[in-house]
Amino acid sequence: MEEEAMAEDPIRQRIEDYTKAIRAKDIDGVMSFFAPNLVSFDLAPPLRYTGADNKRQEWQDAFDAYDSIDYEVRDLTVTVHGDVAFVHGLNHFKGTLASGNITDTWVRWTACFQQIDGVWLVVHDHVSVPADIEHGQAVLDLSP
Amino acid sequence: MEEEAMAEDPIRQRIEDYTKAIRAKDIDGVMSFFAPNLVSFDLAPPLRYTGADNKRQEWQDAFDAYDSIDYEVRDLTVTVHGDVAFVHGLNHFKGTLASGNITDTWVRWTACFQQIDGVWLVVHDHVSVPADIEHGQAVLDLSP
Repeated sequence: MEEEAMAEDPIRQRIEDYTKAIRAKDIDGVMSFFAPNLVSFDLAPPLRYTGADNKRQEWQDAFDAYDSIDYEVRDLTVTVHGDVAFVHGLNHFKGTLASGNITDTWVRWTACFQQIDGVWLVVHDHVSVPADIEHGQAVLDLSP
Repeated sequence: MEEEAMAEDPIRQRIEDYTKAIRAKDIDGVMSFFAPNLVSFDLAPPLRYTGADNKRQEWQDAFDAYDSIDYEVRDLTVTVHGDVAFVHGLNHFKGTLASGNITDTWVRWTACFQQIDGVWLVVHDHVSVPADIEHGQAVLDLSP
């Protein structure tokens, strides 16, 4: 169990650095987290995209839109074995637009890692809010 | 590479059996896929639930609601190392209600496995459709 906890450490550190980079709107810091051939199921359409360039564009758009961003990963669970790991958590995005309007949303976040040349990279991620299928609504106002 | 492909085989077989169980509305077959302490980010609210009993209820409700269900996993990608694996795919749910109305939705699906006592079980899954944040809509009409 202690050995497993130690194996989690580099992943937890990576995620800590990732959230810091988001808060600093440091696009290169954010992108150092993702494998070039990332497959993403992201919050907004499309269903799926491939390639870190698309992820970069998503974050760059957010960094351009918001004056300031607060970002938190809560209830992070890490499972690691050798060069493969998966994590999940509830992530809190709070952004303030130039207008002063605030976006405040909790999303579900699953990220799957591989250690490639000694560096842990996200090869797949999945970000979402639940759907109210009957009414066709995205449920954006839930919190843990 | 051949060794990796062979390691994928038991996972792919499990998923094949899972889809068959869904189509057969075999609730025990479906549930044999999940760890008791499963953490699920499911299609509908809440944000998160823990425990296979909740997953059983979700599937039982679907089995009760639909006269017939077709279920397909497309573009399945499997990554496995030792006793840990993660997969993702686009899953097609097509259900016919007693009224004759048809539900036809593609969802994004990520499942994280651990091999426990020689059996591959899903310890975490994430099922979603994209969200149109600006309009508060769940985007239910996308297909791959």
